[in-house]
Amino acid sequence: MRLIAFVNSNGQPAIGARIDANNLVDLTAAGLPDSLDELLRMGEAGTQAALEAMNRRGVVTPIEGLRYLPPVRQPSKALAIGLNYIDHAAESSFAPPKDPVIFSRYPSSWVAHEQPIVRPRVSTQFDYEAELVAVIGKPGRYIPKASALEHVAGYSVFNEGSIREYQLRTNQWTIGKNFDASGSFGPELVTTDELPAGAKGLRIRCRLNGETMQDADTKDMIFDVATLVAACSEAVELQPGDIIITGTPSGVGLARNPQVWMKAGDVCEIEIEGIGLLRNTVIDGA
Amino acid sequence: MRLIAFVNSNGQPAIGARIDANNLVDLTAAGLPDSLDELLRMGEAGTQAALEAMNRRGVVTPIEGLRYLPPVRQPSKALAIGLNYIDHAAESSFAPPKDPVIFSRYPSSWVAHEQPIVRPRVSTQFDYEAELVAVIGKPGRYIPKASALEHVAGYSVFNEGSIREYQLRTNQWTIGKNFDASGSFGPELVTTDELPAGAKGLRIRCRLNGETMQDADTKDMIFDVATLVAACSEAVELQPGDIIITGTPSGVGLARNPQVWMKAGDVCEIEIEGIGLLRNTVIDGA
Repeated sequence: MRLIAFVNSNGQPAIGARIDANNLVDLTAAGLPDSLDELLRMGEAGTQAALEAMNRRGVVTPIEGLRYLPPVRQPSKALAIGLNYIDHAAESSFAPPKDPVIFSRYPSSWVAHEQPIVRPRVSTQFDYEAELVAVIGKPGRYIPKASALEHVAGYSVFNEGSIREYQLRTNQWTIGKNFDASGSFGPELVTTDELPAGAKGLRIRCRLNGETMQDADTKDMIFDVATLVAACSEAVELQPGDIIITGTPSGVGLARNPQVWMKAGDVCEIEIEGIGLLRNTVIDGA
Repeated sequence: MRLIAFVNSNGQPAIGARIDANNLVDLTAAGLPDSLDELLRMGEAGTQAALEAMNRRGVVTPIEGLRYLPPVRQPSKALAIGLNYIDHAAESSFAPPKDPVIFSRYPSSWVAHEQPIVRPRVSTQFDYEAELVAVIGKPGRYIPKASALEHVAGYSVFNEGSIREYQLRTNQWTIGKNFDASGSFGPELVTTDELPAGAKGLRIRCRLNGETMQDADTKDMIFDVATLVAACSEAVELQPGDIIITGTPSGVGLARNPQVWMKAGDVCEIEIEGIGLLRNTVIDGA
């Protein structure tokens, strides 16, 4: 399934399953929850109910003009991975890490597909980062790598927008990764059955104003999704709806010569083969 | 006021205001919310209603045997500050930072006063950190330092328990600061009117099995509470209930010779003058 969280014509949150290029079935109108957060907490029963509701069709809504919400609105944890592609570690002047480099993003730091991302007034170094997101479906602690992918419900796309002056002014990156509305997430949560195992071998790209800035393959991650799920679950019991933002390949604006920064009016697109295209326009913060 | 979140005799969450050494007034029984999270979101009206309910007395409950909850249960953000005392930066072999060093903790990483803190089975390096917590009462972005303390509702105590192998195995500390139930928070939220401005000049101590391990003064923070509130609000709009965990002084187990690690059965007490004593026993994780 290709699941979407959106705002319905009454201004209420709803979820849907896309059935073709132009339409989705409104799952909330069919009696399911109004957030994927809650659907994921229902586990296998939720997936099954969503599939049945999709197949019954029911209320069909056009995609055109849809106001998207982030696929997961309030994950209990959003774990982000740094330096997870060799070329990006190199362009950032870091050695490839021996263990996953983990930091955290607050939900306030991202917006949905087609919502504006914000360059804060205190920064001129607003950078893009194309990333694959793994969304947890089944809870677990100390998950073995061999069964880790069973805990993933699906995948999505993230623009891990970063405020570089703040990220790099101390040795901890967190603050530069958490400016309000500096990142984006979506448009869809694509369930694992639609994709290769671990979402490997998918082309991942970032285009800024139509120009390709990043172009890589998810198989080039240093730590693959199964390894990341296992590693994160050593520290925390992963919960349905938790997300792991798996790191960006080379080509970020910081590492270019001359450097490239996003500014008001720019259109940033992150596309992952088979998963979706996440598009946002940059605005200046107040 | 000295506000407490707790589990009432019916097993339901409730909040109270302590009126003497032995008793609190149940504010939830008086019609107020069942969490301080929600009371804080009511702003000045919430404080006023709490004060009135406390003064009316109503349902008085003994403190003895009380099952505490963390003062704030689900802050939208918990921002933690590293290396914020010169002596601790030195013992950790870091230069004193020029800007606040910020990372993040998930609510799953802490428990309440008198609840067990957990040494995970993957670590033998479980360390304590005595810290002052500032709890936000009034929302704000780009808060000027001069008015920053107006955004603080009160103060509490945190044991910023750290899993050192994981904290230090990469350059990002987040994962070692977020093991489930590795820290603690409480027992009380003490409103600002009960304390010196910015909670400055308060003795802060950690005792492990009765032995003093840390003993410092909150006035020795490199970045004071007003500076931290202003700095964090450059990135995020602070919300009522958000917490800033302000860093630990010298004396951590990691920096001792020989090193000291917490183990099952140990009792760790963090005490801040005028705010409270936070006590937890260590257990081994499953």
